[in-house]
Amino acid sequence: MSTGATDKDHDPGSAKRARVVIIGGGFGGLWATRALARAPVDITLIDRTNHHLFQPLLYQVATAGLSAPDIAAPLRHILRGQRNVTVLMAEVDRIDTGARSVHAGAQHWNYDYLVVAAGATHAYFGNDAWRDYAPGLKTLDDAFLIRSRMLSAFEHAEASTDPVEQARLLRFVVIGAGPTGVELAGTLAEIARHTLPREFRRIDPGRAEIHLIEAGPRVLSAMPESLSASAKHQLERLGVLVHVGQPVSAMDADGILLGTQRIDSATVLWAAGVAASPLGACLPVERDRAGRVRVAPDLSVPAHPEVFVIGDLASVTDGGKPVPGVAPAAKQMGRFVAERIRRRLQGKSDSAAAFRYRDFGNLATIGRLAAVVDLRGVRFSGAVAWLFWLFAHLLFLIGFRNRVIVLFQWAVSYITYQRHARVIVGAPGSRSGDEPPPS
Amino acid sequence: MSTGATDKDHDPGSAKRARVVIIGGGFGGLWATRALARAPVDITLIDRTNHHLFQPLLYQVATAGLSAPDIAAPLRHILRGQRNVTVLMAEVDRIDTGARSVHAGAQHWNYDYLVVAAGATHAYFGNDAWRDYAPGLKTLDDAFLIRSRMLSAFEHAEASTDPVEQARLLRFVVIGAGPTGVELAGTLAEIARHTLPREFRRIDPGRAEIHLIEAGPRVLSAMPESLSASAKHQLERLGVLVHVGQPVSAMDADGILLGTQRIDSATVLWAAGVAASPLGACLPVERDRAGRVRVAPDLSVPAHPEVFVIGDLASVTDGGKPVPGVAPAAKQMGRFVAERIRRRLQGKSDSAAAFRYRDFGNLATIGRLAAVVDLRGVRFSGAVAWLFWLFAHLLFLIGFRNRVIVLFQWAVSYITYQRHARVIVGAPGSRSGDEPPPS
Repeated sequence: MSTGATDKDHDPGSAKRARVVIIGGGFGGLWATRALARAPVDITLIDRTNHHLFQPLLYQVATAGLSAPDIAAPLRHILRGQRNVTVLMAEVDRIDTGARSVHAGAQHWNYDYLVVAAGATHAYFGNDAWRDYAPGLKTLDDAFLIRSRMLSAFEHAEASTDPVEQARLLRFVVIGAGPTGVELAGTLAEIARHTLPREFRRIDPGRAEIHLIEAGPRVLSAMPESLSASAKHQLERLGVLVHVGQPVSAMDADGILLGTQRIDSATVLWAAGVAASPLGACLPVERDRAGRVRVAPDLSVPAHPEVFVIGDLASVTDGGKPVPGVAPAAKQMGRFVAERIRRRLQGKSDSAAAFRYRDFGNLATIGRLAAVVDLRGVRFSGAVAWLFWLFAHLLFLIGFRNRVIVLFQWAVSYITYQRHARVIVGAPGSRSGDEPPPS
Repeated sequence: MSTGATDKDHDPGSAKRARVVIIGGGFGGLWATRALARAPVDITLIDRTNHHLFQPLLYQVATAGLSAPDIAAPLRHILRGQRNVTVLMAEVDRIDTGARSVHAGAQHWNYDYLVVAAGATHAYFGNDAWRDYAPGLKTLDDAFLIRSRMLSAFEHAEASTDPVEQARLLRFVVIGAGPTGVELAGTLAEIARHTLPREFRRIDPGRAEIHLIEAGPRVLSAMPESLSASAKHQLERLGVLVHVGQPVSAMDADGILLGTQRIDSATVLWAAGVAASPLGACLPVERDRAGRVRVAPDLSVPAHPEVFVIGDLASVTDGGKPVPGVAPAAKQMGRFVAERIRRRLQGKSDSAAAFRYRDFGNLATIGRLAAVVDLRGVRFSGAVAWLFWLFAHLLFLIGFRNRVIVLFQWAVSYITYQRHARVIVGAPGSRSGDEPPPS
């Protein structure tokens, strides 16, 4: 164990302790860190932000239902009681598996074991220019940018005197009908229909069009077909226009092209694809098309048993099926590699270990009282699914305070349809004053 | 009254209704708007943000104790029930008192009555280069920038291996010992001493130095001398180093010069001066040194009885004493000019009207259980003053939800010393990744 004093003074015992570096404080990295709490190791947890983010509720921050601190907490606060961890905010730009070192600018850290849990970012499938037109949703910064664009569109529509421009401002496009796209489209429809109407004088927010675009044949393609159909029906009941089997063919600052159909829109959101962190390219190992690292069954890098890759950055199969990029899988991988490190430090044989994914089911929310749940064959949708989704998410939120606050917000917003965080602030490119309303 | 339908279709009755344009949705503008709820006028309320801000608690957002939505609400949400108001988000850049019009870019609005409540911004007394080194605190964007700089300083100190750089990162300077400067310095000291210590491994946040700099002879100069002395004592008990009678003579990116004393600091905050909004320069009237408009006793602009200036932008005296730039004064001015407009519309004589400021007292908080209160001679400080301050502010917060949430936050943070909003996000120039830690 650490001395408890500041670790700057060299701890004479630490020469014998294994150095574990963990890159990324998401579900994978944080769960690996916690699972090593009692191991005789010195952990350095490096993240480019200062916080762990409860990503399943990030769309609620983007749509002004929750505040950032409701779903994010400083990593060093979460880990304050775990004395064998040093948390550092830094952006890792290079891994040297030969020298066993991790680099961020001029700084570097040596490791005996490395856990790479750097996650994923948006993929625009070669259309990198689309990035500016259609922001994705992975970080809190993304959420604030989306919130600001969405709220500003209604503000600018109210200020505009040009009916064509007003219509463009009141048309929203969400690309990709996975869980995030469905959540964004459903919530946008609710905001337009229920939250805003009484507040505007010159426009009717209820006239807003919400388009959900999916290149594949159905929404929520990871779900059974019956639940996809139910989700589509629930979306349409909320007033969302669902386009399936139609890939986006072009995009500019004023809208998108869907085959030959032009959709003019001031607010296009991207929920269509993820690409693994570019850090995977530092590792001497094959990657799949999405950039994910093809790890060994024990999640280590072939020929580098001291390097593990977990979470959205890992490409791994269990029973021939790919393990999905979801929070439960990342947590399980984090705990699994912690166990590998512990066993090796104890000198135990561990060569036959293989990661097994325990799939508890799949759930997605659409809007108020609207969701779909698939618990390994037990399928339900609508109000019961929504309540199940709500309590499952509350249960996994970190921190008592956050649970109380989020439950309170949901209760208020359930009763009043209000979304309390409708404050335009802090998003680059849409700061007050920088972006005059169209005239 | 409005027809209740969208106002885009020309209301045949509206030709007879007076058009009132109100610039600014702070305390002055919002209270003027509300006081005109039953008047036969069509109000256009223009603000460059979408929200009303409860500025007295803005320092809590800057110091991660509260979230933005706890103290800010969309203006159109607050005014949703008042059908004679159209709220527009736009940045007014010109007022033409001859044509009786207000301009924002290519848009303009004509008025019969104009209320200018555009507030104030930071004043750097001719040292505009200081703006980049020492941000001020007037808007939510400012608060996020300060929060990000403050939290990042501790993060970078933990990551740094250079003791000199660590010391510079752990030294904080607040310039100006008015209410905002005192609140910032006191809260910073509490964060360093009580909130953070257990969370760092390589630095001791408790070693952080907080310097409060005041050019004048005492802190809280608007208070009686006995309370200034008490405030200084309470600050020093929190560990704040108070420098009075010492103006800052120079500043650069690495610190400040105080006479001949150099203070190296990575985080310098500005709470030393305010300047009235530049919109005042559009009005054909004399302004004082701070740029405030010298209005007539009825708060109108001489020779333009249809134009009123209120709040921090107005320079007005009552009984020979200048009315201070505080929220209660702005609200009273807002209600006062609404009454002037109503009376004139009724054809009543109003030439003798003069604004009288009802001064209920003065209060300032320093930290946990530390505050000073002066209720027109009844003076107290310490724990009782702090409780008085707390409930006075809760009482004036807009919205039941905000009161419940803020009370809950304060209770939690009182018991645990924790500040829940310690999430670095969205501040330009300090976004994750843009600003690598010093090495």
